Amino acid sequence: MTLARRSKEKAWPETVKATLDGLLRVLENPTRRRILERLARESHYPLQLSKELGVSQQAVVKHLRALEESGLVSSTEEKSDLGGPNRRAYRATERFSLQIDMGPRLFHAEMRPMAHAPSNVREYGWAEDMLRRARAEDDPRRRVRLLGETIRKLNREIDAVEERRLNLLRLKDAAMGEAQGSVGDVLASYQERQVLYFFLEQGAPSLDRIAEALDLREKVVADLLRRIEREFPLIGEA
Amino acid sequence: MTLARRSKEKAWPETVKATLDGLLRVLENPTRRRILERLARESHYPLQLSKELGVSQQAVVKHLRALEESGLVSSTEEKSDLGGPNRRAYRATERFSLQIDMGPRLFHAEMRPMAHAPSNVREYGWAEDMLRRARAEDDPRRRVRLLGETIRKLNREIDAVEERRLNLLRLKDAAMGEAQGSVGDVLASYQERQVLYFFLEQGAPSLDRIAEALDLREKVVADLLRRIEREFPLIGEA
Repeated sequence: MTLARRSKEKAWPETVKATLDGLLRVLENPTRRRILERLARESHYPLQLSKELGVSQQAVVKHLRALEESGLVSSTEEKSDLGGPNRRAYRATERFSLQIDMGPRLFHAEMRPMAHAPSNVREYGWAEDMLRRARAEDDPRRRVRLLGETIRKLNREIDAVEERRLNLLRLKDAAMGEAQGSVGDVLASYQERQVLYFFLEQGAPSLDRIAEALDLREKVVADLLRRIEREFPLIGEA
Repeated sequence: MTLARRSKEKAWPETVKATLDGLLRVLENPTRRRILERLARESHYPLQLSKELGVSQQAVVKHLRALEESGLVSSTEEKSDLGGPNRRAYRATERFSLQIDMGPRLFHAEMRPMAHAPSNVREYGWAEDMLRRARAEDDPRRRVRLLGETIRKLNREIDAVEERRLNLLRLKDAAMGEAQGSVGDVLASYQERQVLYFFLEQGAPSLDRIAEALDLREKVVADLLRRIEREFPLIGEA
């Protein structure tokens, strides 16, 4: 994770680093991902998931426990209609986007929480309008049709935005590659190069953030910076 | 994974489903992610990584083997300058973006390969221009400074695009939530609802793709579609 991203994470709960780790550990399992896909559509009972996915109920219960402990799903106990024992219904609850970007010259892993309300309503006013129209529609059939149109239009927009993001990542990868070659031409010391890479991404990161990211004492970093300044007098203006 | 995404994956190698699974398995380990972060900056020897990360060389070698087997890094044997045994230098090689999006009403996991050349040069002409100017610069110090500016500008753009993507996902989550409520009002059958959710995302997915995604026979899906049509006569026009 680059320093730029770490600084952003500081605004999140203290556990966020553990959360990225925890999320990847939970989502690494394909059956758990299939369960989440179902739970995002409607709530399910363990027996139902077991039948639908062709996985033993014992395994499903184990996966649901891991998902609930990680905060990705929650459950409520429901009385059975048939007078049988109570059943536990599971539902997806978390909102986040997890991204891992990798080019030969860049690597970045991040978990971004997804807030409840859109923060930029103006840009997607058309979607808000379509949602409003759908909500005002009494006939559930017409309402579902309108919502389907909205969802498909949003899917196309999401695809376009992702394509833009990939283009930008490709360009960043190219720029990082060029920069790494040039840095290597001038700085012979490994640690000096590592510090300079932070400047390339951040402009002027603070001493303690470099020290933390590279696991070095601040005094060592200050010393490295003085030596880099001698070779790269322009860096300070970044 | 929704059907919409699966159809896209069809254009990729047959192993892509295994690749998403494989990638998550490999990237779940935090030490492996720290190694990849270093290897994206420059090539490293195992001993060097072991010192830098404070992890035993044995563990580093094990992680590097897993990374190499998954195709994320490659290695070359280099003669030691000091007449010692040959050393193996490791480098990051893969290009991809892996995303897992989750709202209470949506779940989507996808691996997108990152092509070498930007596919939309016009939109990011400014970045191409900055890269060209940097390449033409003889002084490595000025070159690195220009590249740093380019990288930081690209970082700001990537942030803005990600914010847009999150806004769209929030809106999609809201639309999915509305639709799920309305579908539940009309369709009492679980399988009918599952099929209808595909229509909401896709418009008109083919029989065999619904059958594959829901692990049902095509005859069963055709039957479900006839029953849904009766309740949702508008769906066919989507």
